[in-house]
Amino acid sequence: MEGESVMNGGEGANSYAQNSSLQGGIVEAARPVIEEEISTKIDVKQISSTFKIADYGCSTGHNSFAAMHVITQAISRKFDTEELSSLTPDFHVFFNDQVFNDFNTLFKSLPPKRLYYAAGVPGSFRVRLLPKRSIDFAYSSFALNWLSGAPKAVAEKTSPAWNNGKIHHFGARKEVLEAYTNQFAEETKAFLDCRAEELMPGGLLTILLPVVPASCNPDTAYTVDTELGVFGSCLVDLAKQGRFSADKVDSFNLPLYFTNPEEFKGIIESSNNYTIERMETLYNPGKRVLSSGPKVRATIFRAAFEFMLINHFGGEIIDELFDLYANKLAASSVLSDTANDKTFEIIVVLKRKPS
Amino acid sequence: MEGESVMNGGEGANSYAQNSSLQGGIVEAARPVIEEEISTKIDVKQISSTFKIADYGCSTGHNSFAAMHVITQAISRKFDTEELSSLTPDFHVFFNDQVFNDFNTLFKSLPPKRLYYAAGVPGSFRVRLLPKRSIDFAYSSFALNWLSGAPKAVAEKTSPAWNNGKIHHFGARKEVLEAYTNQFAEETKAFLDCRAEELMPGGLLTILLPVVPASCNPDTAYTVDTELGVFGSCLVDLAKQGRFSADKVDSFNLPLYFTNPEEFKGIIESSNNYTIERMETLYNPGKRVLSSGPKVRATIFRAAFEFMLINHFGGEIIDELFDLYANKLAASSVLSDTANDKTFEIIVVLKRKPS
Repeated sequence: MEGESVMNGGEGANSYAQNSSLQGGIVEAARPVIEEEISTKIDVKQISSTFKIADYGCSTGHNSFAAMHVITQAISRKFDTEELSSLTPDFHVFFNDQVFNDFNTLFKSLPPKRLYYAAGVPGSFRVRLLPKRSIDFAYSSFALNWLSGAPKAVAEKTSPAWNNGKIHHFGARKEVLEAYTNQFAEETKAFLDCRAEELMPGGLLTILLPVVPASCNPDTAYTVDTELGVFGSCLVDLAKQGRFSADKVDSFNLPLYFTNPEEFKGIIESSNNYTIERMETLYNPGKRVLSSGPKVRATIFRAAFEFMLINHFGGEIIDELFDLYANKLAASSVLSDTANDKTFEIIVVLKRKPS
Repeated sequence: MEGESVMNGGEGANSYAQNSSLQGGIVEAARPVIEEEISTKIDVKQISSTFKIADYGCSTGHNSFAAMHVITQAISRKFDTEELSSLTPDFHVFFNDQVFNDFNTLFKSLPPKRLYYAAGVPGSFRVRLLPKRSIDFAYSSFALNWLSGAPKAVAEKTSPAWNNGKIHHFGARKEVLEAYTNQFAEETKAFLDCRAEELMPGGLLTILLPVVPASCNPDTAYTVDTELGVFGSCLVDLAKQGRFSADKVDSFNLPLYFTNPEEFKGIIESSNNYTIERMETLYNPGKRVLSSGPKVRATIFRAAFEFMLINHFGGEIIDELFDLYANKLAASSVLSDTANDKTFEIIVVLKRKPS
């Protein structure tokens, strides 16, 4: 299932690289938090000759490069401030994503003037990817919201969690939501446990994540979950028009989950390896501007979902599907106004406990 | 120029992955030497919690995986022999090749049951690629014989080293050979100097390389240089037939150089960072069998040169060119018999001096 949730590669108009500005604004929003954490939590005298950073779920690097720049600059500046410039370490950055990620594009896009040596690390971040205690600073942005695949039960006709006529849990029966919630908790726990082994004691793990509030009034507001519900209804419409069978919709479910801050905190606490140094909402003023028009919002979904949609439904329906989706957004008084969007982003900074 | 000498990617019939068995046999031939060097030269008590290995010029990994298996197994066995199994380190392998290498194929081909964590490192191995003192064991096989590009002077009409009517130095004027020799020495020196910074003091650098004898009697014997001369004559033939202009041949030169052991030893000694632990001819019995027929020999050249030939001459001439080349090999009593091939392979094991 891992291969299904790969982003659009390359650098074309519908590529993830060209359509991830929403997340790009996020790096700017996260910058002051990251800088302050590095400035106050990292003891440069404890750093060896190489400072190792890993980005888990980097895609083709577009936003990752900005984040790695912020981190390496902040560490470097700290050595200068403490008049230890001559001890500034080499920086080694590990860019991780699934085996099917387009690492060729990532490598060709590396900024020529970077402060670090770069390496790519292929594989699921739900297993160990790097040697024990090899990482000083771990980072993951807009990645944990991707599941390794949709929960198996939601595509099984005989399961109480069978999600017929939908492609996500919005408005579905409670067993569907439970299946998603449980899988997110399990996979996030696996992520945290693996990073705990890879991190040095005292090392920081910074997570950026889109989240939803625990509840949302559908008459006046919406979240990304609502949007996914509307997007699913477009696929149901196309099935009704005979473009493909209803079975096709029943057997397709998005491998995505948007947690809420309370739930996420509970999962972190269930892993006993970290202290929560910081957990707060990110102020991302670029978001509303960048994601305002229905057509642009449809293109953002397209960059993220096109690969798996073509895999399941074939390529012929894609243009029509995203036009239909943009039209539905535009036609709704609630959904058309992004001021009603209650989806938000959080930054969480964890510190690896001494083991 | 770096991008020009990239091997055929993917896994198709003409890919490098499918046509590098000659080098694959080399890993088997090198195995006893590598195992003995590890057994006698590496002090496992000096190894930290991670043992780091780098392969410089790994291509899509086909042969690299075999070599990394040999190295990690030999180290692991040494811990067992000394009854220190519980201290066996994590292994971290860095696979390096040029930015334009097909890392996507490399990553998808990684052996599922490997003893090591894997990372890809994009970039020319003539510059620094990894942090200082970060590597315990460096390896490079059939890579240093590739130059970053053909020497500039050999394609310049106004230069005494202008190599008109040829694509390599075989049978060319002495300035052409000098240009190749000098560039090989410079680039090998750059490689050695960079690895000296990346290696831990006492770390081993193992180099496998195809070489030629310092001299060869053309009436009874040939080397890969002779073969490149014949291959160049096929391009001249096609130019005479009007398939492309003679200028096209004059401006094309292969970025390849085959050193001889005495010359190579001199270059190593000019870098003051290593002791030569071992330097010997490899016994590679599979070589003659695998490269016997002219058609197979032509396919091996094709896998290595096709990319840059298409870049320069266009794709239309490729099939004809390699047929012509196979026919010329078959027609020569000396060249058709691989028993006359004086090209051979060496293994060199260097130890990083304490700095």
